[in-house]
Amino acid sequence: MFTWRRQFSQTATLLKTAAMASSTPNTKAHSFQVIRDVPPLRTLRRELLLSNRTVGLVPTMGALHEGHLSLIRQAAAENTDVIVSIFVNPTQFGVNEDLSSYPRTWDSDVAQLEALNAELATQQTQTPNENPRGKITAVLAPTAQTMYPTLPPSSAEDGDGSFVTITPIARKLEGAARPVFFRGVATVCMKLFNIVGADRAYFGQKDVQQTVVVRRMVADFHVPTEIKIGPTVREQDGLAMSSRNVYLGARRRGVGLVLFRALKAAEEKYAAGSLRRGEILDAANRVTQRVLAEQQGLGPAERALFEVDYISLADPDTLDELDTVDPRRGAILSGAIKMAPLEESTPGEDCGLGEGKVPVRLIDNLIFPPRE
Amino acid sequence: MFTWRRQFSQTATLLKTAAMASSTPNTKAHSFQVIRDVPPLRTLRRELLLSNRTVGLVPTMGALHEGHLSLIRQAAAENTDVIVSIFVNPTQFGVNEDLSSYPRTWDSDVAQLEALNAELATQQTQTPNENPRGKITAVLAPTAQTMYPTLPPSSAEDGDGSFVTITPIARKLEGAARPVFFRGVATVCMKLFNIVGADRAYFGQKDVQQTVVVRRMVADFHVPTEIKIGPTVREQDGLAMSSRNVYLGARRRGVGLVLFRALKAAEEKYAAGSLRRGEILDAANRVTQRVLAEQQGLGPAERALFEVDYISLADPDTLDELDTVDPRRGAILSGAIKMAPLEESTPGEDCGLGEGKVPVRLIDNLIFPPRE
Repeated sequence: MFTWRRQFSQTATLLKTAAMASSTPNTKAHSFQVIRDVPPLRTLRRELLLSNRTVGLVPTMGALHEGHLSLIRQAAAENTDVIVSIFVNPTQFGVNEDLSSYPRTWDSDVAQLEALNAELATQQTQTPNENPRGKITAVLAPTAQTMYPTLPPSSAEDGDGSFVTITPIARKLEGAARPVFFRGVATVCMKLFNIVGADRAYFGQKDVQQTVVVRRMVADFHVPTEIKIGPTVREQDGLAMSSRNVYLGARRRGVGLVLFRALKAAEEKYAAGSLRRGEILDAANRVTQRVLAEQQGLGPAERALFEVDYISLADPDTLDELDTVDPRRGAILSGAIKMAPLEESTPGEDCGLGEGKVPVRLIDNLIFPPRE
Repeated sequence: MFTWRRQFSQTATLLKTAAMASSTPNTKAHSFQVIRDVPPLRTLRRELLLSNRTVGLVPTMGALHEGHLSLIRQAAAENTDVIVSIFVNPTQFGVNEDLSSYPRTWDSDVAQLEALNAELATQQTQTPNENPRGKITAVLAPTAQTMYPTLPPSSAEDGDGSFVTITPIARKLEGAARPVFFRGVATVCMKLFNIVGADRAYFGQKDVQQTVVVRRMVADFHVPTEIKIGPTVREQDGLAMSSRNVYLGARRRGVGLVLFRALKAAEEKYAAGSLRRGEILDAANRVTQRVLAEQQGLGPAERALFEVDYISLADPDTLDELDTVDPRRGAILSGAIKMAPLEESTPGEDCGLGEGKVPVRLIDNLIFPPRE
């Protein structure tokens, strides 16, 4: 009993030390409740239930950007009350992944949520005859010990604990590179769903495999929460928004757009009538190969090198790789590239958080809808 | 997609063939609803919620006996409405275990539940001034395809599917002999808890490791259902009631009592002040060794041989084996023995269901309470 308690506080201390100064929820007054533990959340949920209100949950790991805000807007349009959870979930980071450096930006997150609540309040008064739009009622920011009350959260593949596993889909694509990732995602989502008891929960299409895993979990475990997927929010030039983009810097950001461009080239093939894996993926691979060759021709202070992890054409439910797209089912086209650290930088260059030294994995996807 | 659908119907056909004629829910009118699928159960649950009623869930695999009825009585005393689930859960049986021969006794189960509802109704009218006691409102008897909607239920250790795993406690004791057992139990309980949304769920102390696993799951996943444990119900002579006892027959039943006697001998040591593993377990082992020696001295038509699988003295929460009992925490003393098939029988002998040829694993336990 005492051994793991000690382990647990060591882990907790590590997590705390790794977090930035602004990462800890404080007690300032907000337009929403900040809830740190399960009992007050249950009390709130019960009040909402008895008042016939509806609850939309938007689970996040903080470091909020326009993609999260877009999900919250969708949740507020479909529910009277939105609960945003902010929890950097340790079990979805592998042992050698970026848990300690994952951006923790509590003050900025809260400021964005406050601004969004003000925006939602304006819309409520502007459209008095429509269904009143919801607002952010609470931010759930639990501690690791609340979320993992018994054993310390393990990131090891053979680590002990209470986990939800969804195989074989959790082993494919992102799961091949990150073997504990979807176990961690499914586990923390089951906990959050049980805590919040939301009518609906919102996930971004950007993490498309996550949406497939969570939907499968909800179906197989009969979780009484409806899963809603919001579209990927992109920068002006098409780069999918991601909390990890802050590590890119200008040079890698520009080159990193190659993934989206490659997926778009493949999408054009499907739109033009092709159903064959070879034709569709060749179009994507030509783009990545050309851009990589261009970069390799530049000097170390100008280029940004990358590796393609995968570009996949897969069934929308099973994520099995497809030789031919069944036009009645459509497909998921997804990819991952790894931006290498910058080799050299020039004085004053915008190298991003971490001075260009942090490798950044970018993922993106496009849905090929079924054809009538 | 079509491959596993075919696999699934094969599994379903096997299960159906294996079941006895009387195992299938029929449409007779009962004093409770018989619900086969999730949507009507959710409708019922919503009605009960809106009427401020409370729901106790008693999950069973059918083959009901006085142990189950005792749990239902407890649930009816603490809730206005009791939902009994009857589902022989394939994922908690190992590949070589007794899924196909597990007793399926629908008609007898329903008759016992009807009799119990009549008994509960009598008590309601006899004690008008007490809180009105609850009754059995519904029996949930889902199909395997409802409980495992996507992939066919796998019993293989490395089988794919959506599972809840609770380690390391699921690997200990019963889990050492039955590696998929608690994965199956935790998985089906999470599904049932999500479907029923019960205020309380009832489990028997007889399956003590199951109670530890389920309680851990509920704590770690913040399941909003309270777990209540009912005492082990025993025959007059002390044999713990079990659905599998029907396979014993008179001879093995008599000898099988050795497990309970061994545990009682160990309990006396604890009651007399001993906290040491050696002293406590030696008392139990002396009983099993003496009875085994007696049996080995008899002829094949008279004896019933058995093997002791384990006798364990463990921490109540972690199930770690104890060298010394911490008197502030108490302990769980548990054991398992395997009754071998009868070697020879005499004409007219009561050999139990399966003519004495089915090996029967018996488990039992006693709780050592903390000492003040």
